[in-house]
Amino acid sequence: MTQKFKKSPLAPKSFPNLPNIKGIKLSATHSGIRYKDKLDLSLITMPDKTNVACVVTKSTTPSAPVIWCKKIKNIGKARALLVNSGNANAHTGKKGLKAVKDTVEYVAKNLECKRNEVYVCSTGVIGEFLNTNKIISSIPNLIEQKESSWKEVAESICTTDTFIKGARENCSINNINYKIIGIAKGSGMIFPKMGTMLAFIFTDLPLPSKILNNLLKESVEKSFNSITVDGDTSTSDTCLLFSLNSKPLNKSIKFIGDKRIKLFRKSLDNVLQSLAQQIVCDGEGASKFITVNVNSAKSYKNAKEIALSVANSSLVKTAIAGEDPNWGRIIMAIGKQGSSVIQDNISISINKVKITHKGTLVNNYKEEFAAKKMKSKNIEIDINIGAGKENATVWTCDLTKEYININADYRS
Amino acid sequence: MTQKFKKSPLAPKSFPNLPNIKGIKLSATHSGIRYKDKLDLSLITMPDKTNVACVVTKSTTPSAPVIWCKKIKNIGKARALLVNSGNANAHTGKKGLKAVKDTVEYVAKNLECKRNEVYVCSTGVIGEFLNTNKIISSIPNLIEQKESSWKEVAESICTTDTFIKGARENCSINNINYKIIGIAKGSGMIFPKMGTMLAFIFTDLPLPSKILNNLLKESVEKSFNSITVDGDTSTSDTCLLFSLNSKPLNKSIKFIGDKRIKLFRKSLDNVLQSLAQQIVCDGEGASKFITVNVNSAKSYKNAKEIALSVANSSLVKTAIAGEDPNWGRIIMAIGKQGSSVIQDNISISINKVKITHKGTLVNNYKEEFAAKKMKSKNIEIDINIGAGKENATVWTCDLTKEYININADYRS
Repeated sequence: MTQKFKKSPLAPKSFPNLPNIKGIKLSATHSGIRYKDKLDLSLITMPDKTNVACVVTKSTTPSAPVIWCKKIKNIGKARALLVNSGNANAHTGKKGLKAVKDTVEYVAKNLECKRNEVYVCSTGVIGEFLNTNKIISSIPNLIEQKESSWKEVAESICTTDTFIKGARENCSINNINYKIIGIAKGSGMIFPKMGTMLAFIFTDLPLPSKILNNLLKESVEKSFNSITVDGDTSTSDTCLLFSLNSKPLNKSIKFIGDKRIKLFRKSLDNVLQSLAQQIVCDGEGASKFITVNVNSAKSYKNAKEIALSVANSSLVKTAIAGEDPNWGRIIMAIGKQGSSVIQDNISISINKVKITHKGTLVNNYKEEFAAKKMKSKNIEIDINIGAGKENATVWTCDLTKEYININADYRS
Repeated sequence: MTQKFKKSPLAPKSFPNLPNIKGIKLSATHSGIRYKDKLDLSLITMPDKTNVACVVTKSTTPSAPVIWCKKIKNIGKARALLVNSGNANAHTGKKGLKAVKDTVEYVAKNLECKRNEVYVCSTGVIGEFLNTNKIISSIPNLIEQKESSWKEVAESICTTDTFIKGARENCSINNINYKIIGIAKGSGMIFPKMGTMLAFIFTDLPLPSKILNNLLKESVEKSFNSITVDGDTSTSDTCLLFSLNSKPLNKSIKFIGDKRIKLFRKSLDNVLQSLAQQIVCDGEGASKFITVNVNSAKSYKNAKEIALSVANSSLVKTAIAGEDPNWGRIIMAIGKQGSSVIQDNISISINKVKITHKGTLVNNYKEEFAAKKMKSKNIEIDINIGAGKENATVWTCDLTKEYININADYRS
């Protein structure tokens, strides 16, 4: 982290204890791309037969590394992941693509693997040319140096983050204990449209890349694609899920319908949701963690659109920052997103205080009830649309003066 | 105005000198709906044969007055406009609709006109029940009292506005001088989707309501629908254009193709654009007026979407507040809106300083060049998409700490 800004009040107490996964080698270093005294470059190497799934930003101005990841992801194999922070290598044209190509070639040569097994992610300032020399000259050291910790790697991918993000789950399949380890970065430019910021998940449960892809897409939809900080979508969002073959199953998993997937899916969802929520907790300037539940909608899509509209509204978010239960702004945000709702069916609660019921204020409602609850660090908005059976949940944070502080001079 | 917040630094020097239009009677008063010492209720009466065009918010949770205006607008006739500030009468269910009905009936009875010739607009807090008694008991006085000024009426419709908004144009048709007078309010919850906040325009050029509607829709698209303050869409947005029949033409205008329309259209556009830009200048917390020009796009729709995406980006707006020419965020905002662009064709300038050309930084670009220009109160972003011939312009303001100040406790 740049440590320019004080730690988010919503940060977890500590970084979780993340164990090694056999076969993965972690290396982090300071290459000096932008920051003075911060780990900013990591290389993660994995053994042969590692499968990978990849979900990237839907931005139509993606970064050069995203263009590369999109190109190789269908092959589904990975031997290395190289990540730098400080420079996003985005909107850098042919020069940017060449920087990726040169780096990938150098890594592939040094690791004796194929180029399309080398994933690259860059995060930081958009539009400046990446100094490839600083990266390439660090690679031999990264390969040879003694192993780094998950915490160091997670730190090396941070930019404006105020804390380091990690999560883990175990799941027991055929009496063997498998691990799922995830790290992520992100605190601004967060409104993922497929994939988000950077998130890397590793498991030693061997799964084919087709299944990994299905699982990752589903899990991303209800985690990284269900958060928003500022409604802005990064050019660099990338989420990778690696599956190592180091602890083979007696009978391998070949179909998504395999019963053993169920447990893994649950654990994977937990890891992704934990990381996604940590990104929200590190939302630039955040002082409150906000959950928006939309229930009884016509469709999941409709529920999600309404939830995102509320979660993206500057007026809702500033009201929460001011601890004002200004539910009129919630109604405004429900209305602005365009899908048809029946206003007279809508009910709203904040932190379990019922405010409106079927289209108007509840009879005995007094503002003090809700105002008291607004002092909490956790704000939960329940919206019942009264139109069907589908639900969606979205997480966000409030919009504070600190957000402006951070963003009015991030680069300088 | 509530005068709680200091006047916007972007406010015009003074309210324009707006002449009377024969046949219009203006009355403004203090009814005490919410504010202590502010004009908060206006009645504007117009003679028989006044035509009207109406454009309202696309919100799916519209206010009771908007529901009423939508109901009567196809009739196209108007005798009165009643506007209150302090309470939006939105999300108030059947009680809210009854409040409108009662008020309209009372006005119609007192003016001896039809109910569907009485337009009502309310602006202010959402979700609280409107005290109809305060309004109804003020109506006889409004009808009898001596005439108010445009400035007083314009003041009475303000809520968080820090200055009063008005504009005028003249146009000469068949050697007769016709007037177009407009007033408006608005500073937050501004991202109109058809119609905006409140804006009322009056002309003594007699035009049938069908032509008025066409002209108003077109003009709104390039004025109120081309501005954004915070990406939030009000439940109350209403724009009305009234045409009086007090100065008849020798040969009346019956078709939109009539050559005489051309002059009027230009003047109407000027009035609407002036009012729309004044709303942006009063954008909550605004310190800079921002123009986003998107040129050479495939279609107008595409150009407008890109321009709005840039103008709505919190990260672009905070960078401008911090006087940081952070063009990477402009690229991000172009990419996030989803319509396909060819990144390598895009060129960007800020206040005429060329920053990128066809997808990368221009060769001799130095940040100082653009940084110097960022100190201006007026920021003009030119984006050339390099994909076609269509252009769009959108106006917005920067996002400052003052926006949070204002919105974290608007109600309390």
